[in-house]
Amino acid sequence: MITCNELRLKDKIDTFATFGALGNGGITRLSLSPAALAARDEFCKRCKALGMEIKRDDMANIYATLKGEEDIPAIIMGSHMDSVVQGGNYDGILGVLTALEAAETIVTEKIPHRHPITVVVWTNEEGARFDPAMMSSGVIAGKFDKELMLESKDREGITFKEALEDSGYMGEITNRLNAKDYMALVELHVEQGPVLEAEKKDIGIVEGVVGMVNYEFTITGQADHAGTTPMKYRKDALFAACNIIRYLHDELDKLDSKLVYTTGRMNVSPNIHTVIPDLVKFTLDVRHQDPTVINQAIEIIKRVPEEVDRCSVSYKELWSRKTVAFCKEFIDFVEKNANEYGYSSMRMYSGPGHDAQYIADMIPTTMIFVPSQNGHSHCEKEFTPLHNCFKGTNVLLQTILDIDRI
Amino acid sequence: MITCNELRLKDKIDTFATFGALGNGGITRLSLSPAALAARDEFCKRCKALGMEIKRDDMANIYATLKGEEDIPAIIMGSHMDSVVQGGNYDGILGVLTALEAAETIVTEKIPHRHPITVVVWTNEEGARFDPAMMSSGVIAGKFDKELMLESKDREGITFKEALEDSGYMGEITNRLNAKDYMALVELHVEQGPVLEAEKKDIGIVEGVVGMVNYEFTITGQADHAGTTPMKYRKDALFAACNIIRYLHDELDKLDSKLVYTTGRMNVSPNIHTVIPDLVKFTLDVRHQDPTVINQAIEIIKRVPEEVDRCSVSYKELWSRKTVAFCKEFIDFVEKNANEYGYSSMRMYSGPGHDAQYIADMIPTTMIFVPSQNGHSHCEKEFTPLHNCFKGTNVLLQTILDIDRI
Repeated sequence: MITCNELRLKDKIDTFATFGALGNGGITRLSLSPAALAARDEFCKRCKALGMEIKRDDMANIYATLKGEEDIPAIIMGSHMDSVVQGGNYDGILGVLTALEAAETIVTEKIPHRHPITVVVWTNEEGARFDPAMMSSGVIAGKFDKELMLESKDREGITFKEALEDSGYMGEITNRLNAKDYMALVELHVEQGPVLEAEKKDIGIVEGVVGMVNYEFTITGQADHAGTTPMKYRKDALFAACNIIRYLHDELDKLDSKLVYTTGRMNVSPNIHTVIPDLVKFTLDVRHQDPTVINQAIEIIKRVPEEVDRCSVSYKELWSRKTVAFCKEFIDFVEKNANEYGYSSMRMYSGPGHDAQYIADMIPTTMIFVPSQNGHSHCEKEFTPLHNCFKGTNVLLQTILDIDRI
Repeated sequence: MITCNELRLKDKIDTFATFGALGNGGITRLSLSPAALAARDEFCKRCKALGMEIKRDDMANIYATLKGEEDIPAIIMGSHMDSVVQGGNYDGILGVLTALEAAETIVTEKIPHRHPITVVVWTNEEGARFDPAMMSSGVIAGKFDKELMLESKDREGITFKEALEDSGYMGEITNRLNAKDYMALVELHVEQGPVLEAEKKDIGIVEGVVGMVNYEFTITGQADHAGTTPMKYRKDALFAACNIIRYLHDELDKLDSKLVYTTGRMNVSPNIHTVIPDLVKFTLDVRHQDPTVINQAIEIIKRVPEEVDRCSVSYKELWSRKTVAFCKEFIDFVEKNANEYGYSSMRMYSGPGHDAQYIADMIPTTMIFVPSQNGHSHCEKEFTPLHNCFKGTNVLLQTILDIDRI
């Protein structure tokens, strides 16, 4: 079977790791920042050298296309190049670089393909500079209002509109990905979790993105002096919060073992060692691929009493997302290709969101995961061994070629 | 029985409530601030009008003395006039004003007394401007090093030394309270807790200040993505912290019912709703009058496992304080006087610290508590009804006169 070039892939990873490098193995490459624009320039230079035609849409998404044998809708692959603050060299960028390597292999090996093949770079996926995350794929898929997005400001008060206009990468709205000109999307991404490594698998066959609900609980007690208030009079909002979290664990653990839930944020007020806390807020993030299980979790949340340990309890939904299912035919291609290359693989759902989940509403889509060492992501320690990147690239290439033959 | 003048006491409370008033019923009167100096000026003016002699020591503590019939050690009463930010009109200041009213009653009613009678104003009791609390009584009692205290800075970088020198209230070290010139101290204070009100008692007969230990727990887990990390791989420091707090409640609740313990401060890191917390720190404050019970609590703390829910657990003592017992003879005077006036009373220990606890190491000392409405203190809602202030003043006056006859 045809394979990509591992050393050439290493050169790509090493080169792009310099854009926004912090000297500790990681990068800060916020969307449309000088470091991100330098990475875009390098990307375009390399695409042009391969004879690809480059277009940009009004959200500064870049589309670099290899002409196909026929004038039919294109197959598209890629991801994003922006990072969080002190992020790593794999989240997003690996999806772009493996797509570029797959395209380069097609060019250098003169692999025939009927469809045009496009490598895409999405703008502002992380949302680390301009809220929300997955902004530009979301605008294209009709999830976000573009005018609102243009007003989004970074910490220095620069709007997304200003950054777009200053970037030199803003293009035509007519160049947006659409269901007429594109027929399939495949995004390779690092898993950002520990499962593939723990299960000793090379390839994650991503069946979809799990649905989620995110709640914020508010516990209201009474602030009193730690030294003067007998225990029986206390309304300790932190103790009540601990008991609610215990209840949630006890009950949610009875549901399907694939359910994940997280109390990631907790703020205690007044947060003074000699004062009984009167206000605690904490978040609960619940994810599962099956909406039935999500609903079971919601029922458990609804059973939290309105009063716990003499404190009043309320909660509200911050947001939710439905499960996104990827294209079954493409999923099967990924699995077949992993097998044919002799790579170990497993089917799984993505916990985090990705640009592909929005595009999946427009054209048939799937994703390929490669392992994240120790599950680390969104940090400088984020790492995927080169041989895993290489295996992922090969499966990506072969999946694109399979789709080309549909 | 002789009583003070309730309307005159009201005038004192109302007048001093203007110094640092915020317009919401409370005050901000940080130590040696313009508002605090204005209150000192008014205090000295009123003392001079009563024929009292005013001295100041090197920590700007003020001693206003009514001459006694004999040249023997003085009896001293009083408290502090500084407040926390957005504090109330009773914490500290009521101890000064009731002492002033008791002195005024002695003068206007021409009550004979053998001992000189002194009203004291302690500098920087709250520690809200210059850390630590009870600074000046602590220096006099040898608890703090004066040179270190002089270096203590407020938020604007002004040292305590600078504020002292600018105040116009710095006096001679020879004027400090000492065991040769003073023979007894009584401090009236608001309870700062809900017990007297809940138990429907007018007077708290304070037997001492409870001992305390304060610990900080550190729980270390691993930060991972909320969407990608199966529950079985998680090291959730917040969940572990909740379970430790539950354990502490379960076990500490088995000890004496007068034990109070508080987990007042908790900080969660990275505190992001989509990330499993990897670091949680929380404080545990434990107070009881009996060192045996404190030791039982420490034994329970020591039994917290080093690993909880796959997270590592450590703790350290931030500080501790031994129980201070007040003078039994004075305590009996307070109880007798409450009974003779027909006021309801109960014996109790103070949870918070007070200047009197340091002076108790130097001369026989006791305290009198009056109720705090709803237990509120260190806030603008802090309130003690006038009739309760009046009752406290009468008990204070009579207790001073009892001591005078020893």
